[in-house]
Amino acid sequence: MGKARHIQAKRNCVVVLAFDGGGTRTRCLAITRSGCVLGAGVSGPSNVAQCAARDLKRSLQAAARMALAEAGLATDRVRAVGAGLAGVFPDGRNRETAVLFLRSLFRRARVQVVGDAVIALRGAIPEGHGVVALSGTGASVFGVSRDSGAWARAGGGGPILGDDGSGYRVALDGLRAAWRSLDGRDPPTSLAPRMACALGVSRFEEAPGLVYRKTMTRARLASLARVVVEAADGGDRAALDVLRRAGLDLGHAAAAAIRALRMRGRCIVSHHGALFTAAPAFADAFQDAVRAACPEACIRPPVLPPLGGAFLIGLEALGDRPTEDRLDAFQKSLLGCSAVLPGAWSKG
Amino acid sequence: MGKARHIQAKRNCVVVLAFDGGGTRTRCLAITRSGCVLGAGVSGPSNVAQCAARDLKRSLQAAARMALAEAGLATDRVRAVGAGLAGVFPDGRNRETAVLFLRSLFRRARVQVVGDAVIALRGAIPEGHGVVALSGTGASVFGVSRDSGAWARAGGGGPILGDDGSGYRVALDGLRAAWRSLDGRDPPTSLAPRMACALGVSRFEEAPGLVYRKTMTRARLASLARVVVEAADGGDRAALDVLRRAGLDLGHAAAAAIRALRMRGRCIVSHHGALFTAAPAFADAFQDAVRAACPEACIRPPVLPPLGGAFLIGLEALGDRPTEDRLDAFQKSLLGCSAVLPGAWSKG
Repeated sequence: MGKARHIQAKRNCVVVLAFDGGGTRTRCLAITRSGCVLGAGVSGPSNVAQCAARDLKRSLQAAARMALAEAGLATDRVRAVGAGLAGVFPDGRNRETAVLFLRSLFRRARVQVVGDAVIALRGAIPEGHGVVALSGTGASVFGVSRDSGAWARAGGGGPILGDDGSGYRVALDGLRAAWRSLDGRDPPTSLAPRMACALGVSRFEEAPGLVYRKTMTRARLASLARVVVEAADGGDRAALDVLRRAGLDLGHAAAAAIRALRMRGRCIVSHHGALFTAAPAFADAFQDAVRAACPEACIRPPVLPPLGGAFLIGLEALGDRPTEDRLDAFQKSLLGCSAVLPGAWSKG
Repeated sequence: MGKARHIQAKRNCVVVLAFDGGGTRTRCLAITRSGCVLGAGVSGPSNVAQCAARDLKRSLQAAARMALAEAGLATDRVRAVGAGLAGVFPDGRNRETAVLFLRSLFRRARVQVVGDAVIALRGAIPEGHGVVALSGTGASVFGVSRDSGAWARAGGGGPILGDDGSGYRVALDGLRAAWRSLDGRDPPTSLAPRMACALGVSRFEEAPGLVYRKTMTRARLASLARVVVEAADGGDRAALDVLRRAGLDLGHAAAAAIRALRMRGRCIVSHHGALFTAAPAFADAFQDAVRAACPEACIRPPVLPPLGGAFLIGLEALGDRPTEDRLDAFQKSLLGCSAVLPGAWSKG
């Protein structure tokens, strides 16, 4: 963070803390009321449904400390907290532990804790209504109706119940297409040598020795989605099929949410995730599936990352509105801390 | 085992030990030269690629001891050992440790160790050439050409690289179809209430709390394939689709092996696995896929389970031929020990 920002921080006492907490990581930003990011922190998991209370608290505190230390601010400067945590239901169930703990940490702050889907929607669509599709290691869809305020989810079943459209699934389907090409079930594909290379073996036949190792986590497997994207860029038919299938699957989930919320006419549909920007075949297929169900849908890229949604929710707790200036300042200063927060722009 | 058999055992000194060793269990039978099963034993894993040498030896010894104790026979009565162990390649690679250990245990015996695929083929097709498809927790295909003696595998990639046509995949696809029906992506299916019931929850919405528990093993998940079979029996469309897809996938793998071995005309195709007998939609789809690739294929049920294949390989080491009488005696006496060897007839 530059010197100018620190000076500004000293002048502007009111700071909003934004949290984005998932099953692997918790990210936190310290942001001025005007939208200037002063510090960032990353810590361990804070999925409230998976974490013990002690671990949840430790992650929240560690990420906040790191962000405030980088901003050069004391804890008592925090006047609002906006947190989106995995495992908190869209209706607020499961948030109590986090709320009480954050209130005890930041006694002068207003605290808002919502589900991770809520900040994802709010970041992607600051208006707060519409449908957002998330494709990271997992994949899910969340929507809120403008008319009724009702919400709906689709997908989001995880690796067993279904993570159609996720990076993990793209990686898996890429590995499987490569494996099928080995014994002649499918035509040859560049995915076999490419995956072998990414796994660090000379021939894809050796893949079983690697993918079944105990050290091979779901996140590491999911990172192989980039190999599928590269193969598709090179024109590989099997890779393009995998990406198109995944995009259609996630689009169908978005269409299901649109139907469930009885959205008519021009509903807004947005998304988070590296596949949307990196893989045109994926993004196009997603659009095709959404348009088939809802021809008038306005499909647009996200305005802010999920952490931006958490910021807006914190701002609101202070009675502030998300003006264009604030969104602009937030976006610009977020780019400056991308080194601290790799992947802040995507759940992947 | 009845008294009559024990008397026979005392008269007939020459006993063959048959082993079927996998990643979870090792099964062993003590069988007379004439095909009469005198004792059975079950122990832990003996996949030579996954087990430490010590564990491999322990499993082989424990299963053999149990079988011989039940037969009331001393170790020195064993004159031949036929073992099919997972992790041993069809060309014999990886078998050395098991061979040396079994020779040291049974000093008067001729020892033959082959891959688990080899005994599966030999049991299903005693002629020893053709293609066998296995659908248990995992799925794979193995074939041997009559003309050249060449062999080929297809599928068998496991849960990450692809286990198309396996019980695990059928269970997973059934769970996923149920999950998709919840949020309206797919039409309603009886799989949702049936799976909820099998998991012991009142509504399928609660499934995530169960399927992601650490105690939920792959084998336990695979056992949910029976729920899909039951739903299909009740006419459930989604369940029938899952089973048909799985049967086609495994049939395509068999077709790939037929092509790889350049089998012309009337090749024999057989199979092991509960899905073939319990799920007509699965078996029919398998046949359809094989016939599409090889119209003259002779598709028939297995003559013997994989342990029968191990028995035949042990017999051959003694210079004996697999006469009709022997196969008949083996089949009949195997039925009598099904309580000791649950699942001996299927890898599932």
